Amino acid sequence: MTGPRYTPLIDSLPSTVPFVGPETQERRMGHPFAARLGANENGFGPSPRAIAAMAAAAGEVWKYGDPENHDLRKALAEKHDCDPANIVVGEGIDGLLGYLVRLVIAPGDRVVTSEGAYPTFNFHVAGYGGELHKVPYKGDHEDPDALIALAKQVGPKLIYIANPDNPMASAHPGETILRMVEQVPEGALLVLDEAYVDLAPEGTAPAIPADDPRVIRFRTFSKAHGMAGARVGYAIGAKPLIAAFDKIRNHFGMSRISQAGALASLQDKTWQAYMRRLIAASRDRIGEIAAENGLSALPSATNFVAIDCGRDGTFARAVLEELTGAGIFVRMPGVAPQDRCIRVSCGPEPEMEAFAAALPGALDRARARLG
Amino acid sequence: MTGPRYTPLIDSLPSTVPFVGPETQERRMGHPFAARLGANENGFGPSPRAIAAMAAAAGEVWKYGDPENHDLRKALAEKHDCDPANIVVGEGIDGLLGYLVRLVIAPGDRVVTSEGAYPTFNFHVAGYGGELHKVPYKGDHEDPDALIALAKQVGPKLIYIANPDNPMASAHPGETILRMVEQVPEGALLVLDEAYVDLAPEGTAPAIPADDPRVIRFRTFSKAHGMAGARVGYAIGAKPLIAAFDKIRNHFGMSRISQAGALASLQDKTWQAYMRRLIAASRDRIGEIAAENGLSALPSATNFVAIDCGRDGTFARAVLEELTGAGIFVRMPGVAPQDRCIRVSCGPEPEMEAFAAALPGALDRARARLG
Repeated sequence: MTGPRYTPLIDSLPSTVPFVGPETQERRMGHPFAARLGANENGFGPSPRAIAAMAAAAGEVWKYGDPENHDLRKALAEKHDCDPANIVVGEGIDGLLGYLVRLVIAPGDRVVTSEGAYPTFNFHVAGYGGELHKVPYKGDHEDPDALIALAKQVGPKLIYIANPDNPMASAHPGETILRMVEQVPEGALLVLDEAYVDLAPEGTAPAIPADDPRVIRFRTFSKAHGMAGARVGYAIGAKPLIAAFDKIRNHFGMSRISQAGALASLQDKTWQAYMRRLIAASRDRIGEIAAENGLSALPSATNFVAIDCGRDGTFARAVLEELTGAGIFVRMPGVAPQDRCIRVSCGPEPEMEAFAAALPGALDRARARLG
Repeated sequence: MTGPRYTPLIDSLPSTVPFVGPETQERRMGHPFAARLGANENGFGPSPRAIAAMAAAAGEVWKYGDPENHDLRKALAEKHDCDPANIVVGEGIDGLLGYLVRLVIAPGDRVVTSEGAYPTFNFHVAGYGGELHKVPYKGDHEDPDALIALAKQVGPKLIYIANPDNPMASAHPGETILRMVEQVPEGALLVLDEAYVDLAPEGTAPAIPADDPRVIRFRTFSKAHGMAGARVGYAIGAKPLIAAFDKIRNHFGMSRISQAGALASLQDKTWQAYMRRLIAASRDRIGEIAAENGLSALPSATNFVAIDCGRDGTFARAVLEELTGAGIFVRMPGVAPQDRCIRVSCGPEPEMEAFAAALPGALDRARARLG
């Protein structure tokens, strides 16, 4: 009696996960975090209208969700001034990135991204046997010129960029991304991850026609809309590419409650404006806390802030560990020199104050450990 | 400017979907169905405790769900008397079947199933390039002996059987499935879809040790628990196989609201017992309605009933079309001779009565059309 015969690709994959969840850390520690500021969730929460819509939908959850996501796609098409056939809704950007990679990447196919960019995208590329080619960040920004230059060299099927960036919170103006689109080599597709663009300065989202076949854009309800746990993301792209998702996606994969919540949130424009102000104020507060401790906060176009701890990755990791021990959930970039920073999500005042209270001691103990 | 370069496999796939949703039909008709009895949803709805838990979780949906599904897996492990490491939770059985197929099926690999069995499983097999080999039903049951015999002949990596069966609602005793497990050829894995087993007679679920490497069992909150729209399924299998899902699954793919609802539903044993009684009564009512119209209902071990319309597939399809036109959403088996039936889901009295009111006219019009 043996187990199943896995594919050679599956046998070759390591047993890694892109992120360890805060609940796992809490179970290891034996107590909950005092401040949950590590996953770029939005602790200000969803729109009250979205909460009401989701609560109302709970009693109707005996029905499968509409597999066409018709009403949500229609509303999104209006927002983005395109056709519903330009939009696919899925189980978060993570789920949609998985589908996209499956559509184009077979073993040995090449993909270009940045060293230190979104690991879940890399998880999917590796999971379909793709070959990752990476360029470094430039001045804490992803580097469009370097990405295009490497793409012209290696002939990838996908080129990934997040704008705004995660984990550094930096952003390029929309014009820079538009110029990048113009240079995408024949046969490649630009994967433009705009998870945080709702929170970025005016002009960060480029005016790309939905039917441009060189690019696919990803958006989410996880960040500005405060609905990470609902798992609603969408992609905007040329109609043939969007139609291709139907060949493979989990057609009945969307929660009906999440569909109702996303639609209600989209309609609550007052809340969205309010959220942008709350998050801007929280970014400022994180900057103040950093400054009070002699650290500098990097400019942020997102709902999180990278704080430069002023030394190397070993030191920043020690600060992070001390914060974790003090009940503050934060994360940090994975590669040098960005790993000199810790990454702190915006959140309500009590969590900000818990972070402010814990940081001085965490810095002291990190300095004491490392000299 | 061209689009992306898809994989050869993707280029070869047709643009089909396993099921057209009732909302799509409603949009085409221009009015909603009076009775939604086609997707084996459970119109009696979720446990009030689950509804309360989901409504309460709506305000907390700014947090990602626990990617380990720890609390739910712990509760499921207690229910099934196994280790949490024997259980993987995913986005419905559909999502988990997709992951399983991805783990084992590469282009050209073989899979054995029944002609007319669950089309979404076939969708996934085709989606990874697998080769489907099929046996016919025997007496409106899936045929374990024939499945094993074909498996011994073609050497598949997966053998699919649903017990109870969908679309016929028939079931084998657990002992029959146990004997089937004993005969699974080396190198094959039995995929035992038990979506409906909570509603089947005592003894239908076989006592398979969770660590048996020859079989993986699938369960869901979509049927007995009335939570189809929440997208919570799980699989029970040997620890190495369950661990393999972590190599590829969408770790943050589960809705936090759905996690909370499933856990609450699992704990509400009173509701589960009540649900079994409601569904048994509804099965009887569907049988009465069939008999009142001179038709016979097949025995059901599920929350739906196959009604033999007494003629061929063309006639049953005409009855179905006439029911649809009268506002009654039902479906039917896809292949002969099972396609002599229509498939009607159990549901509350108003929907049963709408079906009862519509069936005589639908039969008359179908007879008039076909003579």
